[in-house]
Amino acid sequence: MQVFENGVVEHVKLLQAANDEHGGVIVEMEEPMAPQVFATVLRASMLHWKHQGKRGVWIKLPINLVNLVETAVKEGFWYHHAEPNYLMLVYWIPETANTIPANASHRVGVGAIVLNDRRELLVVREKSGRFQAIGLWKIPTGIVDEGEDIIKAAMREVKEETAIDTEFLEILAFRQSHKSFFGKSSLFFLCMLCPLSFDIQKQELEIEAAQWMPFAEYAAQPFVQKTQLFKYTTELCLAKIDKGYTGFSPHPTTSIFSNKNGYLYLNSQDFNQSSCDV
Amino acid sequence: MQVFENGVVEHVKLLQAANDEHGGVIVEMEEPMAPQVFATVLRASMLHWKHQGKRGVWIKLPINLVNLVETAVKEGFWYHHAEPNYLMLVYWIPETANTIPANASHRVGVGAIVLNDRRELLVVREKSGRFQAIGLWKIPTGIVDEGEDIIKAAMREVKEETAIDTEFLEILAFRQSHKSFFGKSSLFFLCMLCPLSFDIQKQELEIEAAQWMPFAEYAAQPFVQKTQLFKYTTELCLAKIDKGYTGFSPHPTTSIFSNKNGYLYLNSQDFNQSSCDV
Repeated sequence: MQVFENGVVEHVKLLQAANDEHGGVIVEMEEPMAPQVFATVLRASMLHWKHQGKRGVWIKLPINLVNLVETAVKEGFWYHHAEPNYLMLVYWIPETANTIPANASHRVGVGAIVLNDRRELLVVREKSGRFQAIGLWKIPTGIVDEGEDIIKAAMREVKEETAIDTEFLEILAFRQSHKSFFGKSSLFFLCMLCPLSFDIQKQELEIEAAQWMPFAEYAAQPFVQKTQLFKYTTELCLAKIDKGYTGFSPHPTTSIFSNKNGYLYLNSQDFNQSSCDV
Repeated sequence: MQVFENGVVEHVKLLQAANDEHGGVIVEMEEPMAPQVFATVLRASMLHWKHQGKRGVWIKLPINLVNLVETAVKEGFWYHHAEPNYLMLVYWIPETANTIPANASHRVGVGAIVLNDRRELLVVREKSGRFQAIGLWKIPTGIVDEGEDIIKAAMREVKEETAIDTEFLEILAFRQSHKSFFGKSSLFFLCMLCPLSFDIQKQELEIEAAQWMPFAEYAAQPFVQKTQLFKYTTELCLAKIDKGYTGFSPHPTTSIFSNKNGYLYLNSQDFNQSSCDV
């Protein structure tokens, strides 16, 4: 039973909602519903949550319920984020400034430096894109998937592009940049890996050619020599193999409030020395 | 003029589109349009782009044109991403597997270690959340905004929460974790900053209290002692101040293909030593 603001008492079904950890509720719509029915039920539910003192209200609409999006927006909801198969809408009930967390802001990429013991670098030529146009031999690179460890992404990209198995060693450096894609920012991790196999089989779809190239030959490419970020890569690589440069290496960790795992990346050499001294 | 597949010749307005860099087009809808009209114009435009050999088709719909979302989805478009004020839809014309780039996958956070020369740590007590419940004195933390440098975010959070001015020194470590928020992954950067001012003024909205706390007292809090990630923070901090631990420090860089700036973070001590030796 619902008591409306105008005093009318009516039996209206409410939307099924789960409480979130921040005093709000989340509705995951699954069953089809006519927009008019949705409007009525949503209004009744909003009154109910308001009386309960709820804060943020989240509505997750799978793409097959696209006919309900307009209704939610007309009721004051706005977009929070979207993935190919759903749209998340949100509303803030209190009169105070909303504390709704921002959407994901960064894309994460990896580049993989794989050197064999003959001082040859694993390099590829791409079939399309900006580097293809200049015929650049470059290290394997790719995007870290949502939910994927940086370590795994680096090993996966090398495996996909060249069929080489690797062991992850270190992150030599990383770069943050902005406006990389629809206004989003980007983080690119330059990783060093050790090869565990040596026979290259290039991937057909994206890779034109792949080879073990003498490091000096890679570094002598004009584009590598004149481009700041590529020069850094070359210098970091030389610093690592010849001068004992130390990057950040992964330590498995457990989350503070859950048993979810992750990796903490730090300067293990300095850290272990420090711990041993204590 | 449009020639349709059934041979009918008709005058239909096409959607205004700009070419993207990957053989696709992007439509930024601005003017209101009836859904039926949009359906007709969209179909004609799709045929046109197909004949032109276009690949990805992007449609950006501001939230006030929410009445067109259902039409786009019915024509085969799906969601790519959304921000509070717009929804981006996408369609892939070729029969080959789509190479549409993934949406942003990570949220980025910072924690700021600010120590004064009396070995006191700048700490805060939050007004809500998990740490409030246990009365924890913690370092200032926050989310890096889209388009914001990690360096700036760390200094901004300290300034907002405590009014202390700082200079950025180093990233001591960072952690990647998953499923932090609606399935998104997270990167948290532990930063070390040097205080440039000392009079604390706490922020009213989120901060219950702020103070300079003797480091040993901070580290002795039971939660800090028994929680793996907090112990790492304490140990990294001690390694830094007493044992010469080196993290990653920022080097301004310019993008490869544009004049956009960013920062490359690396072990400057090892890197500079290496460069000097050459």
